[in-house]
Amino acid sequence: MNSKTRNERFVVIGGCAAGMSAASKAKRLNPNLEVLAFERTAHVSYSACGIPYYIADLVREARELVTITPEEFREKRGIQVFGNHQVVTISPVQRKVTAIDLRSQTECEFDYDKLMISVGGIPNRPNIPGMQLRNVFTIQTLQDGINIRRYVDERKPKRVAIIGGGYIAMEMAEAFRRRFIEVTVIEREKQILPSFEPNIVENVTEKLKRHDVSIRTGSRVQALDGKETQEVVAVRLQESQSMPTDFVLVCSGVRPNTELATMAGVRLGKTGAITVDRKMQSNVPNIYAAGDCIEVKNLVSGKPDYVPLGPAANKQGRVAGENIGGGTATFNGVVGTSVFKTFGLEVARTGLNVKQARDLGYAVDSVHITDNSKAGYYPGSSPITITVVFDQRSGRLLGAQMVGKEGVSKRIDIFAAALTNKMTLDEMAYMDLSYAPPFAPVWDPVLVAVNVAKGHLK
Amino acid sequence: MNSKTRNERFVVIGGCAAGMSAASKAKRLNPNLEVLAFERTAHVSYSACGIPYYIADLVREARELVTITPEEFREKRGIQVFGNHQVVTISPVQRKVTAIDLRSQTECEFDYDKLMISVGGIPNRPNIPGMQLRNVFTIQTLQDGINIRRYVDERKPKRVAIIGGGYIAMEMAEAFRRRFIEVTVIEREKQILPSFEPNIVENVTEKLKRHDVSIRTGSRVQALDGKETQEVVAVRLQESQSMPTDFVLVCSGVRPNTELATMAGVRLGKTGAITVDRKMQSNVPNIYAAGDCIEVKNLVSGKPDYVPLGPAANKQGRVAGENIGGGTATFNGVVGTSVFKTFGLEVARTGLNVKQARDLGYAVDSVHITDNSKAGYYPGSSPITITVVFDQRSGRLLGAQMVGKEGVSKRIDIFAAALTNKMTLDEMAYMDLSYAPPFAPVWDPVLVAVNVAKGHLK
Repeated sequence: MNSKTRNERFVVIGGCAAGMSAASKAKRLNPNLEVLAFERTAHVSYSACGIPYYIADLVREARELVTITPEEFREKRGIQVFGNHQVVTISPVQRKVTAIDLRSQTECEFDYDKLMISVGGIPNRPNIPGMQLRNVFTIQTLQDGINIRRYVDERKPKRVAIIGGGYIAMEMAEAFRRRFIEVTVIEREKQILPSFEPNIVENVTEKLKRHDVSIRTGSRVQALDGKETQEVVAVRLQESQSMPTDFVLVCSGVRPNTELATMAGVRLGKTGAITVDRKMQSNVPNIYAAGDCIEVKNLVSGKPDYVPLGPAANKQGRVAGENIGGGTATFNGVVGTSVFKTFGLEVARTGLNVKQARDLGYAVDSVHITDNSKAGYYPGSSPITITVVFDQRSGRLLGAQMVGKEGVSKRIDIFAAALTNKMTLDEMAYMDLSYAPPFAPVWDPVLVAVNVAKGHLK
Repeated sequence: MNSKTRNERFVVIGGCAAGMSAASKAKRLNPNLEVLAFERTAHVSYSACGIPYYIADLVREARELVTITPEEFREKRGIQVFGNHQVVTISPVQRKVTAIDLRSQTECEFDYDKLMISVGGIPNRPNIPGMQLRNVFTIQTLQDGINIRRYVDERKPKRVAIIGGGYIAMEMAEAFRRRFIEVTVIEREKQILPSFEPNIVENVTEKLKRHDVSIRTGSRVQALDGKETQEVVAVRLQESQSMPTDFVLVCSGVRPNTELATMAGVRLGKTGAITVDRKMQSNVPNIYAAGDCIEVKNLVSGKPDYVPLGPAANKQGRVAGENIGGGTATFNGVVGTSVFKTFGLEVARTGLNVKQARDLGYAVDSVHITDNSKAGYYPGSSPITITVVFDQRSGRLLGAQMVGKEGVSKRIDIFAAALTNKMTLDEMAYMDLSYAPPFAPVWDPVLVAVNVAKGHLK
């Protein structure tokens, strides 16, 4: 196709949060833009974060997690979606991509004027024997979720071993318990949730135990043992301990998917992920990147960081799309906010933890408090535990973590907003936060924690 | 008593939030300080904000609202509390106060080295015939709460007329409905909750109506009609309409109680409340003031403001106490955050509303959005409506209001933190707020509102 006879073309590689946000925003700003999106799975624009709730059967149908279907993208937004298409090469000089239709194995080539790499992350898989067994799952794409749910629905397994003890493992532990499956979480570090402070983790551990989740920390999986049907039957741990299981879920985090980018000459940063500027442009002209394949600036440390989470991917996608569509937008970075729910506990963090702060050379100190979620006399008040991480030299807030039955999720955002503005404990101490007995004590736990921290300043 | 033979003495006038916070903090910092607190009622250190829940019978006993009793102040904190004592004069030159024991009508005099005026506000009462009738209540002190609850318990009234439609009226409407009392709210302005934007108020009005609360806006009470027992039997409105009622609650706001201060030469500000510096010192040496009798700086407008709310009173009291106890602390002001609950709705605001912003000369604009409290597919998601007020010239956030069934209270605090830091919409647009499907959509409603507002910038 002759590029002079056609409109400007924007090609998106990877049709999840970042990619489809960019596609939509660019098309909306510049309706003359031709927008094509290639996605290696059959689904685009779905909530990956909703998968645990689909497996738990809190969400009945996988399609409820899909925000917009490929057909709707075409009909309502004028965006061409190529599902089951894997882009295999980018030629930046000719501004061309080659894609393979995974169903027919036919190859096709497309020119681009602007290109977006939003191919996400790759689930880490321990390099051990048995990982290829049929009922060893990872959880990343909607198809993964559909596969796991189908396995649970059809095979009615009694036991699962979850390898890795991060937040998705916690969400999945709850999901499986809701399906009456016995759960063992195997974490190689000394504690589950290694990025959380021990006092926060204690609360989670206690809750998991109360819901009959077994936890094996400091435990490394040596191999997965299969039977002749190529199905896993046991997890082998150190010292030849063998733990029978009906299936395995690997939740060992993700690393950036950078193969395609690297081949195209796109530069990676220290974290191993793609580096982009604040407009989401890579070092290669006309190539943008966003989502779980890029690194971002951590606004607390000022350093590059790899934080593969949905909200940032959406924002980055929108920013890229705005720039590609002819507008101007910048994405400055993240402070590292996340929250998850497990068995009725809300667990959240933002900013740096003690170890991260120490590694960065801060004069790090931290305090822990527990206070009520509501006025003490108001029915249904429950404890919230907060850890505040701060710098003794500057008095600056560096991070916060929180756990409790309620009122945690949006409370952590107060700290996130404070971190965004590089506030000191002094500046935070008397912040004008909302109060009414059903929602908080007159001194909000956030302020209690900040004031206790302030009292620890030397 | 010869001042040379005794320790330094700190006298507190008014034993609620501000006063007892100051007393406690000063004594803790300087245990040699002699601290006396005078309170005209029998109760000190209670949660005035909890009174509606006591009347609703969600809180069973009035004493549950009391944080610390006078005996505990004496025994555990070494603070002498004089309940039922009204201070009638302050002599700044001799550094003396005169108090009357309201039970015995005896007068006593006390020297002071430092003095705190924390006498709170005075409930506004319309200047109309019948206000002296026996079952016409205001709600401010714990004793007021006890009186209203006793009246409800003993007399089992069927109907109440609430004069004034502010947030306490909303809380009390719910409390009375829980006690199966028919409620009519009479507001002289065109809408209830005059400081809220119409789209937020609409949500509240609809909720009140669904709970059979009658609302009469644009309605001025002309008189209260009594019978021979000196009890109110009807509220007379304009055009001689008469509305029968079994009792009346006046919720017409408070004004600062400044009589004592004025007599002592303490300066008032433009709002009519006491002016203090950031250390809570008045213009008169050794006299501090805090709580509902003072004006504070509105950190959004930069102008003095009268915002009589519990959290600020507590903070101001603590700051004054820290300075009096030998430390150093400052209170910079408020951004004007408040929240209340009525019939399962959370209603919150922070910063300036449209009218306030316009009066201050801002190029004010506002947008309204409604979005989900959780991911749309997650069970139990409910709509949150947000209004964002901003300045077209600077792009600065000026205020926000919010209403919804859940997730409002601490979400408003994100805006409060942004206002504290004078953030622009641009700076807020991609803030790293927490996300997980049970707690928010991937674009938090706060960010949706900010981005819509940003799109309206010219």
